[in-house]
Amino acid sequence: MYLRKILLLLLIALMPAGSALAQAPSMNQPSREPKRYHAVTGLRPEKADYYFKIHAATWPGVLKMIEQANIRNFSIAVTEIEGKLYLFSYFEYVGDDFDADMRRVAADPETQRWWKETEPCQIPLPDAAAKGEIWSSAKEVFYTR
Amino acid sequence: MYLRKILLLLLIALMPAGSALAQAPSMNQPSREPKRYHAVTGLRPEKADYYFKIHAATWPGVLKMIEQANIRNFSIAVTEIEGKLYLFSYFEYVGDDFDADMRRVAADPETQRWWKETEPCQIPLPDAAAKGEIWSSAKEVFYTR
Repeated sequence: MYLRKILLLLLIALMPAGSALAQAPSMNQPSREPKRYHAVTGLRPEKADYYFKIHAATWPGVLKMIEQANIRNFSIAVTEIEGKLYLFSYFEYVGDDFDADMRRVAADPETQRWWKETEPCQIPLPDAAAKGEIWSSAKEVFYTR
Repeated sequence: MYLRKILLLLLIALMPAGSALAQAPSMNQPSREPKRYHAVTGLRPEKADYYFKIHAATWPGVLKMIEQANIRNFSIAVTEIEGKLYLFSYFEYVGDDFDADMRRVAADPETQRWWKETEPCQIPLPDAAAKGEIWSSAKEVFYTR
């Protein structure tokens, strides 16, 4: 472990200054390379219009919390599969402690009020429901910049 | 139409140089503000491993064509819904003629060979199948930068 670290530091020290690795952030600083998150949940058909309407004018406090939680480029799309509606979310996380940031979001009173509006619109898939959660993670299988 | 254009040009000419609109690209140049595309399709369970495997090492010619077609930040995620597998794609388009770029992708021989590998893995939803297509568009209902 230490040997690998020393070899890596040596390698970086010997590299030309303009090269990509030499420009990489130090090990103590968070990397700003975004990590992508995909998730899915169900949408109640009788609540779909309300869900779309509130998301078209998402409360400023909710958007502010998303931004403070280091979430970027966050979109939710809707699609119909076999007669049922599903929501798919995509976002990029640019912080260095995802769990801590998500706990901050969950502790935010305005976000809690927002979720009181949105959660009755959603039908969690069984794996999320079993954990008392709303969104199920989807695994990324392809990416190109 | 012409009056609006003249008024807009006048407005831009009168604006301070540092303002956002004055820095916008001219009307003859493509806007680089990405347009987001979301889509969904089914995945045959018996072909899933093959689909993941080839996408983990997507052919360079296919990636090059994606890049040349002004597609950026392109990811595909997989999820299981009611015992079936579905693929969700997200990408950003930075060109100024999406249809023309997609026609170029479809005309690329390497991409055609790639699709010969991937299409047997996929189960288009009925709306896509009816058009002879693979992916169904999903409508974006929320976005924050």
